[in-house]
Amino acid sequence: MRTTRTVHYLDHAATTPMRPAAVAAYAEAASTVGNASSLHGSGRRARRRVEEARELLAHHLGCRPSEVVFTSGGTEADNLAVLGLATAAAGDVVAVSAAEHHSVLDAAEHLSSERGGRKDVRVLPVDDRGVVRPDTVRELSENLGPRLALVATMLANNEIGSITDVAAVAEPALSAGAAVHTDAVQAVGHIPVNFEALGVTSLSLSAHKFGGPLGVGALLLDRGAECRPIGFGGGQERDLRSGSVDVPGVVAMAAALDEAVREMESEAQRLAALRDRLVEGVLETVPGVIGNGGGQRLPGIANLTFPGCSGESLILLLDAAGIECSTGSACTAGVAEPSHVLLATGADEAAARSSLRLSLGYTTTESDVDEAIAALGPAAERARVAGLGLSGAGASAS
Amino acid sequence: MRTTRTVHYLDHAATTPMRPAAVAAYAEAASTVGNASSLHGSGRRARRRVEEARELLAHHLGCRPSEVVFTSGGTEADNLAVLGLATAAAGDVVAVSAAEHHSVLDAAEHLSSERGGRKDVRVLPVDDRGVVRPDTVRELSENLGPRLALVATMLANNEIGSITDVAAVAEPALSAGAAVHTDAVQAVGHIPVNFEALGVTSLSLSAHKFGGPLGVGALLLDRGAECRPIGFGGGQERDLRSGSVDVPGVVAMAAALDEAVREMESEAQRLAALRDRLVEGVLETVPGVIGNGGGQRLPGIANLTFPGCSGESLILLLDAAGIECSTGSACTAGVAEPSHVLLATGADEAAARSSLRLSLGYTTTESDVDEAIAALGPAAERARVAGLGLSGAGASAS
Repeated sequence: MRTTRTVHYLDHAATTPMRPAAVAAYAEAASTVGNASSLHGSGRRARRRVEEARELLAHHLGCRPSEVVFTSGGTEADNLAVLGLATAAAGDVVAVSAAEHHSVLDAAEHLSSERGGRKDVRVLPVDDRGVVRPDTVRELSENLGPRLALVATMLANNEIGSITDVAAVAEPALSAGAAVHTDAVQAVGHIPVNFEALGVTSLSLSAHKFGGPLGVGALLLDRGAECRPIGFGGGQERDLRSGSVDVPGVVAMAAALDEAVREMESEAQRLAALRDRLVEGVLETVPGVIGNGGGQRLPGIANLTFPGCSGESLILLLDAAGIECSTGSACTAGVAEPSHVLLATGADEAAARSSLRLSLGYTTTESDVDEAIAALGPAAERARVAGLGLSGAGASAS
Repeated sequence: MRTTRTVHYLDHAATTPMRPAAVAAYAEAASTVGNASSLHGSGRRARRRVEEARELLAHHLGCRPSEVVFTSGGTEADNLAVLGLATAAAGDVVAVSAAEHHSVLDAAEHLSSERGGRKDVRVLPVDDRGVVRPDTVRELSENLGPRLALVATMLANNEIGSITDVAAVAEPALSAGAAVHTDAVQAVGHIPVNFEALGVTSLSLSAHKFGGPLGVGALLLDRGAECRPIGFGGGQERDLRSGSVDVPGVVAMAAALDEAVREMESEAQRLAALRDRLVEGVLETVPGVIGNGGGQRLPGIANLTFPGCSGESLILLLDAAGIECSTGSACTAGVAEPSHVLLATGADEAAARSSLRLSLGYTTTESDVDEAIAALGPAAERARVAGLGLSGAGASAS
């Protein structure tokens, strides 16, 4: 006998279901043939679809179509910005916020290596919301002047949802002649994003975070910016990103973004209300829980610390109860590191290991939220007892 | 009034239509959610699908599942092999065949730059079939010994279809301790490819060349090989390729390969017969045409030189007649370089500018071939007259 179980998916920040409109757009585009670099009719039709997708993205994100560089996702877009802008710059200092995604942090770390050109990489402190203060960048820019090559500061944090005032943070660095990159992977499709208004040099996005396909993303790159490619080959995408353009992928990404933007205002209200209901419900029913983040933030991300509970234990207990969420970034299986984002906000290691991210999206319902609230109490109790047993036995909290 | 026109697509080496089975596999996988790095049930199910796709690829290509590194396509796979293996090696010499794709040639060129580590990059001569002779690599290996870091020699050429005896070419380099990469982008799904039997260190493939999706590929990488990542982030794919794995993409790639391999034997016979019919038909009806390549080659690629005709003119004239083909690699629009592959085989620049690649695939019919033969005579005549006019006026043959 098999029983089907309802799963409550609250991990939309890891990946959100591909929107049916995007699946349909993909399948439709995939049913016609054409390499967008080919000169013949099929190639020209493929190129036209790519250019229409580019224009739709540019329209929704406040940039010129020629500033859209299609990539294989957010990681490649972040890598291209950090590595490409830093190596093209005369300055030798690269500054990244402590709360960045690993696709920014690890690219910056690579720049500090011999192979990466031995750049002077500095990690910028963030406040208790996980965001860089404009004054931090102002001071850095004044001290370094032309030595400052690049500043990377994310638009919305992937673990706690905090939104940075990127325009204000970017301004002093841009005035000093540095490039500024913002990782907007969690922001695009969820809050209004306008490249021109932000004033940054580059901005990354990933389709599968707003209901587009996995494996597709883009870097918005200021036309005047000097950026070196990180891949080599056919010279597609203004010579910045080689490889046959994924025609159905970019068409589906544009379809997903179009739908996400049209629904954005109502969805943001709906999700913020659901998130508040979730956070309040958990705070009321589970003793000792602490809410992380605050202020300007994404409507769909809640991050909570359950003192005395291992985040991994919570995930597994919740999973058994049909609630799917994560401890933070979707990390590689088996690696249990405390969240670098929470540590950067000032949380201690115990708290950083005891936190959960519950992230909501376009398919989330009241029932998902209510079931999560109901499941979290017993799960936290069990995890806490298990944690006490472990610490009593002197075991490490991995 | 609109009339529909039948298009005869003979550019399968640029991209082949996504197989309906692959589109269906993609859509089915895309309709379920899950980041393969997530710990919960949806994540584990996504990971299971990825691992099943990995096992299917490994089964069909003669490697271990753990040797499959999923990438965003052939270009990234070639880049990862060339850059990753060369920078991890102690030796300082990188040797690439003159007939490689730009994703290998340009990556090697990057290695010769300061940013790339100033490797000593050598371009290996090829014979009139466009393939490297084993003796060339044997001599190089004997002369260089441990200085030889990497040899790259493609399995099947993308412009003229010639198949290299990669096992024989690789052997002396491997014996000397060098890594050997083979670009099998045009071979996989079309001829039997067995990683273990080839003995190479790495092998690249691209899904859209055998009816899988654009934007998906893989590098087969020997488990004992040292290879450095070229991207940075979440550390997916054995820390070699960061970024959320494209679950529907790899599932669809595996479905396409499975179908391609099952049909391979009969399709290879059918396509070779159609290609011979095409080449013989053109040689009979168009005066002065020269066939390129020969010997062991892919069943689906024909490459012909039309003396006195500009390849670009031919493409446009054929396109107007409903025949879609290319001059060689699908190059970035507007760039009209003579084929570096044909030049490497010993063709002169005029011949290299006067050549067409007609490539057949699983959807190609006799009618496609017969219409191409019928169209090529008048197109060549027109192109030749135009070429005479241009050379008479002293214009360059761009």
